Amino acid sequence: MQERKGPGLSDATRGRLLFGGDYNPEQWPEETWHEDLRLMKDAGVNSVTLGVFSWSKLEPEPGAREFGWLDTLMDLMHENGIGVVLATPTSSPPPWMGRLHPDTLPVTEDGRTEWWGGRQHFSHSSAAYRRYAAAITEDLAARYGGHPALTMWHINNEYCTFDHGDEAAAAFRRWLREKYGTLDALNEAWGTAFWSQGYDCWDGILPPRLPHYMRNPTQVLDFRRFTSDMLLECYTAERDIVRRHTPHIPVTSNFMPLWFGQDAWRWAGEEDVVSVDLYPDPRDPLGAQNGALVQDMTRSQARGPWVLMEQAAGPVNWRGVNHPKPRGLNRLWSLQAVARGADAVCYFQWRQSRQGAEKFHSGMVSHAGEEGRTYREVKQLGADLARIAPQVAGRHITANVAVLHDWNAWWAGAQDGRPSSQVDYPDVLRAWHRALWQAHLTTDFAHPEHDLTPYSVVVVPQLYALTDAAIDNLLAYARGGGTLVCGFLTGVADEDDRVRPGGMDARLRELFGIRTLHEWWPLDPGETVACEGFRGTLWSEEIEPADPDDTTCYKGGELDGMPAVLRKGRAWYLSTLPEPEALRELLARIAGDAGVRPVLDGLPEQVEAVLRGEVLFVLNHGREPVTVEVPGTHHDLLTGTAVTDRVTLGRYGAAVLRP
Amino acid sequence: MQERKGPGLSDATRGRLLFGGDYNPEQWPEETWHEDLRLMKDAGVNSVTLGVFSWSKLEPEPGAREFGWLDTLMDLMHENGIGVVLATPTSSPPPWMGRLHPDTLPVTEDGRTEWWGGRQHFSHSSAAYRRYAAAITEDLAARYGGHPALTMWHINNEYCTFDHGDEAAAAFRRWLREKYGTLDALNEAWGTAFWSQGYDCWDGILPPRLPHYMRNPTQVLDFRRFTSDMLLECYTAERDIVRRHTPHIPVTSNFMPLWFGQDAWRWAGEEDVVSVDLYPDPRDPLGAQNGALVQDMTRSQARGPWVLMEQAAGPVNWRGVNHPKPRGLNRLWSLQAVARGADAVCYFQWRQSRQGAEKFHSGMVSHAGEEGRTYREVKQLGADLARIAPQVAGRHITANVAVLHDWNAWWAGAQDGRPSSQVDYPDVLRAWHRALWQAHLTTDFAHPEHDLTPYSVVVVPQLYALTDAAIDNLLAYARGGGTLVCGFLTGVADEDDRVRPGGMDARLRELFGIRTLHEWWPLDPGETVACEGFRGTLWSEEIEPADPDDTTCYKGGELDGMPAVLRKGRAWYLSTLPEPEALRELLARIAGDAGVRPVLDGLPEQVEAVLRGEVLFVLNHGREPVTVEVPGTHHDLLTGTAVTDRVTLGRYGAAVLRP
Amino acid sequence: MQERKGPGLSDATRGRLLFGGDYNPEQWPEETWHEDLRLMKDAGVNSVTLGVFSWSKLEPEPGAREFGWLDTLMDLMHENGIGVVLATPTSSPPPWMGRLHPDTLPVTEDGRTEWWGGRQHFSHSSAAYRRYAAAITEDLAARYGGHPALTMWHINNEYCTFDHGDEAAAAFRRWLREKYGTLDALNEAWGTAFWSQGYDCWDGILPPRLPHYMRNPTQVLDFRRFTSDMLLECYTAERDIVRRHTPHIPVTSNFMPLWFGQDAWRWAGEEDVVSVDLYPDPRDPLGAQNGALVQDMTRSQARGPWVLMEQAAGPVNWRGVNHPKPRGLNRLWSLQAVARGADAVCYFQWRQSRQGAEKFHSGMVSHAGEEGRTYREVKQLGADLARIAPQVAGRHITANVAVLHDWNAWWAGAQDGRPSSQVDYPDVLRAWHRALWQAHLTTDFAHPEHDLTPYSVVVVPQLYALTDAAIDNLLAYARGGGTLVCGFLTGVADEDDRVRPGGMDARLRELFGIRTLHEWWPLDPGETVACEGFRGTLWSEEIEPADPDDTTCYKGGELDGMPAVLRKGRAWYLSTLPEPEALRELLARIAGDAGVRPVLDGLPEQVEAVLRGEVLFVLNHGREPVTVEVPGTHHDLLTGTAVTDRVTLGRYGAAVLRP
Repeated sequence: MQERKGPGLSDATRGRLLFGGDYNPEQWPEETWHEDLRLMKDAGVNSVTLGVFSWSKLEPEPGAREFGWLDTLMDLMHENGIGVVLATPTSSPPPWMGRLHPDTLPVTEDGRTEWWGGRQHFSHSSAAYRRYAAAITEDLAARYGGHPALTMWHINNEYCTFDHGDEAAAAFRRWLREKYGTLDALNEAWGTAFWSQGYDCWDGILPPRLPHYMRNPTQVLDFRRFTSDMLLECYTAERDIVRRHTPHIPVTSNFMPLWFGQDAWRWAGEEDVVSVDLYPDPRDPLGAQNGALVQDMTRSQARGPWVLMEQAAGPVNWRGVNHPKPRGLNRLWSLQAVARGADAVCYFQWRQSRQGAEKFHSGMVSHAGEEGRTYREVKQLGADLARIAPQVAGRHITANVAVLHDWNAWWAGAQDGRPSSQVDYPDVLRAWHRALWQAHLTTDFAHPEHDLTPYSVVVVPQLYALTDAAIDNLLAYARGGGTLVCGFLTGVADEDDRVRPGGMDARLRELFGIRTLHEWWPLDPGETVACEGFRGTLWSEEIEPADPDDTTCYKGGELDGMPAVLRKGRAWYLSTLPEPEALRELLARIAGDAGVRPVLDGLPEQVEAVLRGEVLFVLNHGREPVTVEVPGTHHDLLTGTAVTDRVTLGRYGAAVLRP
Repeated sequence: MQERKGPGLSDATRGRLLFGGDYNPEQWPEETWHEDLRLMKDAGVNSVTLGVFSWSKLEPEPGAREFGWLDTLMDLMHENGIGVVLATPTSSPPPWMGRLHPDTLPVTEDGRTEWWGGRQHFSHSSAAYRRYAAAITEDLAARYGGHPALTMWHINNEYCTFDHGDEAAAAFRRWLREKYGTLDALNEAWGTAFWSQGYDCWDGILPPRLPHYMRNPTQVLDFRRFTSDMLLECYTAERDIVRRHTPHIPVTSNFMPLWFGQDAWRWAGEEDVVSVDLYPDPRDPLGAQNGALVQDMTRSQARGPWVLMEQAAGPVNWRGVNHPKPRGLNRLWSLQAVARGADAVCYFQWRQSRQGAEKFHSGMVSHAGEEGRTYREVKQLGADLARIAPQVAGRHITANVAVLHDWNAWWAGAQDGRPSSQVDYPDVLRAWHRALWQAHLTTDFAHPEHDLTPYSVVVVPQLYALTDAAIDNLLAYARGGGTLVCGFLTGVADEDDRVRPGGMDARLRELFGIRTLHEWWPLDPGETVACEGFRGTLWSEEIEPADPDDTTCYKGGELDGMPAVLRKGRAWYLSTLPEPEALRELLARIAGDAGVRPVLDGLPEQVEAVLRGEVLFVLNHGREPVTVEVPGTHHDLLTGTAVTDRVTLGRYGAAVLRP
Repeated sequence: MQERKGPGLSDATRGRLLFGGDYNPEQWPEETWHEDLRLMKDAGVNSVTLGVFSWSKLEPEPGAREFGWLDTLMDLMHENGIGVVLATPTSSPPPWMGRLHPDTLPVTEDGRTEWWGGRQHFSHSSAAYRRYAAAITEDLAARYGGHPALTMWHINNEYCTFDHGDEAAAAFRRWLREKYGTLDALNEAWGTAFWSQGYDCWDGILPPRLPHYMRNPTQVLDFRRFTSDMLLECYTAERDIVRRHTPHIPVTSNFMPLWFGQDAWRWAGEEDVVSVDLYPDPRDPLGAQNGALVQDMTRSQARGPWVLMEQAAGPVNWRGVNHPKPRGLNRLWSLQAVARGADAVCYFQWRQSRQGAEKFHSGMVSHAGEEGRTYREVKQLGADLARIAPQVAGRHITANVAVLHDWNAWWAGAQDGRPSSQVDYPDVLRAWHRALWQAHLTTDFAHPEHDLTPYSVVVVPQLYALTDAAIDNLLAYARGGGTLVCGFLTGVADEDDRVRPGGMDARLRELFGIRTLHEWWPLDPGETVACEGFRGTLWSEEIEPADPDDTTCYKGGELDGMPAVLRKGRAWYLSTLPEPEALRELLARIAGDAGVRPVLDGLPEQVEAVLRGEVLFVLNHGREPVTVEVPGTHHDLLTGTAVTDRVTLGRYGAAVLRP
C-alpha cells in the first residue's frame, strides 16, 4: 500500500474529535431542524452526515434536481459551526429507477430479484445505475464542493450487494477475461477438468448461480473477488468525480466490520479516510472485545486515526431481540473507540425516526426526546470528548503484536464441501483476538503480504489460502527472528484454491517441524479433545512430526500421543483451537518470551488499558467498581484531577490519564 | 357496526342446534350416498354443507354446467329432512382455469407462482377469476335459490391468499389511490422520505416483494389491509349475487380463527351469520382455552349465536404429529362451543376421504366406518345436542370483561425491524385470555373503537397501533369509571405506523402516570425478570413515573426499583408480561375489585362453567372425575336428572343445568 | 424379474475380486499418470473407472471429439494389467450444453433453474440432452468397444435429478397417457373429485409444482414413478447403444443406496451388474449396520455378487463435519462388503483432487501421498483381497430371513398431510434391519411381489401401500406356513394411494386377528409408550382385536389394555416400533421359533459373522480386541494360519475362515 498523498482525516478534524452522526432532516418538518440545532449545540455536536438516503428527494424524477432544502441545511450547519460530511445518495436509488430500469435490480443466486422498497437494491454492474449515480454525484460535488460547511465526502453507504443477474454475468466475464487472458488459463485455475466443467467460450461462464450440486469453488472465489472489485469500481467512480471538484476534501465510504463482500485492505488503499460502522450487542459478554477487534482492524487499515462513522446510542432494530445500552455503556464504548484510534465518534442517527424501517433503531435523540436518558448521556459524552480532544486527536497507537487477516483466505475457505462446516473464519479470528485482548495486549491487524518486521509477534489464526508471496513473507519474518504463531487450516491452498502438495505448504510444514499431515480430524459441535494441559475445540489433526523442538500432545482417543502443538524455534503451530483461557495463557506466555508485555501490569480481567500517544486510557467493562494500579502520578483529563499510583473506576467507568 | 337487517342464523336453525358437516359426495359412488343418509339420520345430523370443492364437477370445462348430481343430492337431503348449507365452489378453481388464465394464479413475495394441484390457487385481484366465480355463483343461486333444502349460503372457504403478482400490483395501486388520493399523502403516510423511497408516480408502487433489506412497514401494513379488502370484495361480490336471488337466506363465509389475512371485525359486518373453523390440538394442554378464545371472539364478531362450521371428529392431517381425540373429547369440546354461543356444531367432513390430500383428516364417519369409535361418539353427541337444543339455541351470553383486539394493530406490529421478534401478538393475546379463562371469567372480545360501556373491565393485551378515535374511546371509557388494564407495546404508533411522540401516546402515558418511557428492555428467549411478587416474561421497560397511585417494581438488574406495574385510579399499565399464574391472580383481583366474579365460586382448575341464557354449562377438562359445587337444585338436560348443590363429572364430563 | 441372459459380473472379475476406483486423470499432468500406475500396481489395483466426468474433455465443443488422451490411458492401463470400467460421461454435461440448450437444465418444484457449474444439471426429459448423450455414447462404444482393457460399462453416475420444467411436464403427460389411457381413469385414480381437481384435458396436468396448499398425493406418487422411469429411459438408451457394440461386456450404473428417486428393483432388472456407492459415516455407531443394510439390499437386487463401485478411503466432504476413517476401519468395512457379496471393492477416487468441489473428499492416495496412512492402508487391503479372492469371488450367500422393501410404498407414504411426519420410511426400515443384524441373522431384501417361499421368516417393516398382488403374495406365504412379521402402517393404501376400507386391508386385518382399527395414535418426538415388557416408539394404535392367538398389550394411558402386538398362528402384527433391544429380542425369538439361527452361537455384540459360500467372515466392529468361539478348525485366509475353536480379533480385526 503506497503512502496516501491527498487530504486526510486531520483536514476534517483540525485537532478536534468529531462528534455527531447521520442526520436525515428530510424526515422532519423545518421547525424540527431548528430544535435539532439547539440540541446539537447543547450536546457538543460538531459534525453531521447529510444526504445518505436523499436520492429521491434530490432527484424526485429522472434528471430532476431539488437542492433547495439541502442548500438551507448546509447553510444552517455552517452558521452553527457544525461541519458536514456530505454523502452521495447512491446506496438507495429512487423507486423510479427500478421501474424504468429493472436491470438495475440485483438478482440472488437462486434467481430472485431484489425489488425496490427497501434499500441497496442496485446492481454494481448496471450501466444505468452507474450513469445515474455519476450524474447526481457530479451535481452534488459541483454545487457543494465550495461550501464552507463541507468537511468530508461520504460515498454511498455500506456497500454490500451481490448480483447474479445477466448484466453482472457479462461483467464477471469481462473481469475474468482481464484476469486470465485466455480460457485455458481460467480452466487451469478453476480446475474445470473435474466434473466436466471445461469452458469452450467466455459466454458459457456464469456467476455461481445455484446448481444441482456444489459449485466450482474457484468460480465462487473469483466471484467474491469480482463483487468486491465491482463495488470498488462504483466507489472509485464517485470518488474520482468529487476529487476532481474538491481535491482538498478527504473521501471515505463507511465499512461494515468484517463484512464478507469487501476486501477492506484493497478498499482502504483507495480512501483518504477509513471509516467503519460498529454495532456490538450490548448484551454480548464479549461486546467490548468485538468492538476492540473492529477498532484494531480499522486502525490498521487506516494506518492511523480513523472514523467511527456509525454506532447506536441505544438499541438497534435488526437483531432478534434488540437490547438497549445500559447506563454508561454508550460513553464507555465510545471512549474505547477513541482509545483505539478513533478521531470521530458518530452515530446512526441524530434523531430517531418516527416512520420507516428503522424507526426502532435508536438515535442520539430517542423517541423520549430531550428528557430521555439516551440524549442526556449523549450530551455528557460530547463534553467528555471535547475535554480530552486536545491531548488525543491525531495521536497514534503502537502495537507489538499483529494478527494476520485476509479476505481472500476467508473467501477461499468459506465454501460448501469443506472438511467442517463448524469452522467459521470470523469466529476463529475472534477467538485469537479475544485471547490477546484478554491478555491485555494491544494488537494490530495485517495482511499476510504486509511488512511484518515492526512486530515482535505475529499470529495467524487461520489463513487457509496463501499466495507464494505471503508464504515467503512469513518465512522471512520467522527467519528474521520473529515469533510466529499459526493456527490450523493455514497454508492449505494457493491463491486459486488449489491444495498444496501434502495438504499444507511444504515450507510451512518444515518451519513447524511437521513431516506428514495424515488426516484432519474435525470435531463435532460441542466436542472437545484432551491435550496435555488443556482441551482443544473445533478441530484436531493426525500429524507425524519431523523435528520440532517441543510438542504438546493429544491425550487419549485416536490421536493419543500425537502432537497438538508443535514448536520449532520461534515458530508455533496449533493443530486445534485451545479453549479460551488456554489460548490466552499460551499467547501471553509466547508474547512474554518475545518481550511483549501489557501496558499495565496486574490488570483485573474486566479492565482494558490502551496507550494512545502519551495518554493512557483505563476502561472498566464491569458493572462493579474496580481499583487499578497505575504507578506514578497522572492527570485525569475527564475529571481534571490528579491520580497517584491507583485509580478507582465505577461501573463502566473510564480514566484518561496524561503523565 | 350497524345492526344487521336481513336474515340471520335463527332463520337457519329454527330453534334447533345444527349438527352435521361438510359433505363431499362427489368423492363417492351413489350407493354410498344412501348409506350416508342412513348414518346421518341415525346420528341426528340435520345440516350438511354441499359444494365447497365442486367447481370442476359443476363446470368441468369453461362455461359448461353439470348440475344433475347436485340436483339429486339436494332432493335427497330434503327428502330426509336435512338442510343444506350450499357453498359457492370458488375456493378451488378447476385446473383449466390456471391453464387458460395463468394470471389467476397467486405469486408469493419471493416471486414464486402458486400452481394449481392443491387448493386456493386463485388471485383475489384476478379479473378472470372473479368473472368465472360470479358466473358459477349466479347459476347456482338461480338453480337452487328456491330449493326447499337450502338453509344458508356458504361463500368460498377459508379465504386466505396473498398475491404479489402484477395484477395484484395494479389493484394495490388502485386501492392506494382511493385511500390516499394523492402521492404526496401516500409519501407522507409511508414516510418515504427515509431511505429514498419517495414515489413520483403511482406505477412505481409495488406490493412488498422481497427487497434487499427490510421493507417499508407502512407499505406492508397497507398491503395487509389491501389483501383483506380484496378478499372481502371477492366475498361481497358473490354474496350480492346470492342475496339478489334469495334475500331471505342468510349468508356466511367460514373464518379461520385469528387468521392474519382477514380483518374479521370488518368481515363480520358483511355477513348474516358468522362462522368459524376450529381445530385445537387434542394434545395441547391449553386446547380448551384456545377453543374458548376462538369461541369468545367469534361470538363477539357475531354479536350473538354463531356457527362452528368446521371441527374435526378425530385427528387432522396438517400438524407434524396428528393426534386423535381421546374418548369423550369431541363431545366435551362441542358442548363447550355451544356453551359459548354456538348454535351449530359441524365438522369437516362427514365421511373421511379415501383419496386426495386430506384422506388422513378425520371425518364424522372415519375409515373404520360405522363400527369405529369416532362415529359412535358422533352419534352420542347428536343425541345430546338434540336434548339440550330447546333450552339453549338462540340464547345469548353476557360477559362483563372485554379483551380488545384489532387486526390493524397486529398487522402494524408484526414486522421486521421491531424491538423483539420474541413478541408474538397472538401469543400475547392468548396469554391474557388464558389468565381470564383460568380465573373462570367469561369474556367478550371487542374492537378498540367499539362501545365499551357495557363492560366493567376492559383489558388491552397489546395494541401497538391505535387510531386517535380508539385512544379517545379508551380514555372516555376510563373517565367513565371503567377499569382499564393495559399491556406493553400499546399506543406506540398511529394508524400509519408512525411512532407517537415519546414512544407511547402522551394521553395514555398520562392516564397511567408515566412521565418518560426511556427505553424498552425486551427479554431474551426464556429470560425472566424479577418483580415484586412475581416474575415477568418477554419484555420490560425503563419508565420514569409521573404520578401513579400505586406501583409494583422491578427487583434487581438494570431496572431495579423502577415501576413494572403502574396504577392510577382504575387504569393499570403492565410493562412486562407476568407469568401465567401471576397474571391470572392480578386480573382476578382487578376484576373482583370491579365487581366481576365467576359464574360459580370455588371452581376446580380443570372445570369451566359458562352461563348461556339461563342454562349453566359445567365442563370437566380433566381426565379425572371431579365434583363441583353448584348451589341449589338444577335439572341436567343431558341426563334428565335433578342435581342438588353439587354435580360430579367424569373424565371429560359435562353437565348442562337448567335452574 | 426374468433371469438375465447376457454377460455378468464374472465376465469382469474372472475369479478375482476387483480392487480400484474412479480415476480422473484429466485432472493431472501426464507425469502423474505414470506415478499413479506405479502406486496402483504396488497396491494391487486391478480395475479403474475412467471417463465419469470427462464429457467436456471428450467433447470440448458441440460435436467435437478429443479421444487421444483416453486412447493413451486405455493403452496404459492395458499394458499394466489393469482393467477399465468405462463410463459414459453423461452425468455432467459440458457448460456449452446449458448455454446452447437452456431447456436441458432441470427446474425445481419451486421454479428454480439448476444451472451448470456443479454436476447432474441435466433434465431426464430433454430431447437435446438425450441426443447429445446418445452421440457421445455411440462414439465411445465404437472406439473402445474392442479395446482389450475394457471390462465393464458404467452408464452415467448416480442418476438423481428431478425436473418440474415444461419439457418434463410434457413428458409426464405422455407417461400418464400411456399409463391411464383416458382422463377418466386418471381422474379416478388420483381422486380429483376432491378439491375440484378434475382434469378436462391432458394439457392441464403439471408436475407437482409448489401449490398454495398440499398437492394431490397420487399426482406426487405418479411423478415419482415417472421420474424413476425417465431416468431409467436415459439409462437404457445408453445401455442399448453400448450393448449393440459389445454384447459380451456387462453394463451397470452405480446406485446411491436407498435413493428416493430410483426404483432399484426395476433398475436392477435392466442391468448386467448391480453396483452401489456406499458412504457410512465413520463416526456413526451404526455405520457398520448401515453398510450391511445396503450390502444386503444390493446383493438382493443383484441376486448374487455385486460391485461396491464407490466408497471413501478416508473422509467425504459433503457432511457437516467430515470425519476420517480411524486406522483399520477402511479395511474392516471393505471386508464386510466382500462378506456380504461384493466381488469388487472400489473407491471414489484413486487420487484425491487438488481442485474443484471434491478436493476434500479423500482418495486412495490422499493429499499426504504415498507416505500417508490412507495409502498405506489401501495397499494392505489390496494384498488382503488378493489373498482371499480365490476362495470368495463369485460365491453366494444364503439368507433365511427376508425384509420386504418397495419404493412405491415409500413414495406413496412420504407425503405432506400424513398422520405423522416423525415416521420416516428409511428410518423404520433401518430399525428393523438393525434388529436382525444385531441378532446376527443374515437377511435378504425382497419386493413384496417376489417369490417368498425360500424364506423361513419374512418381515415387513412398513409397506404403507400394497398392490392386490402383493397382498395375495403375503397371504399365500403365510398360508404356506411362513412366518410373517409386520409393522404398522402396512396395507393402508392400494397402488393409487387409495385408502383401503377400514384403514387397513381387510384380509391383512383378518390374518392378524384385528377387528377394527379405530385410530392411529402417533407419538410425539421423543415420546414412548409403555407395553407389557417393553416400550414402543413413534406410533401406537387403538385396535379392537378379533381373534388373535396371543397379544401383548399397552400399559397405561389411553390405550391401556389394548393390543400392541398381535399374533395369529405365524402371523405377527406390531402396532408400535419397539425400542431397539426389544425388537431385536422379539425378532430373534420369532426367527428361532421358525428354525432360523445365527451362523455362530454366542457372538459378542460387536462381532459380525457371515458365511459366504464356505468361507466364514468374522468381523470385529469394536475398538477393543475380542475372542470369538468358532468350533472346529479353520484356515484363516488373511493370516495363512490355522484357527481352532476360537479366534481373537484385534481392534477392527477380521478373520476369513475356510473350514
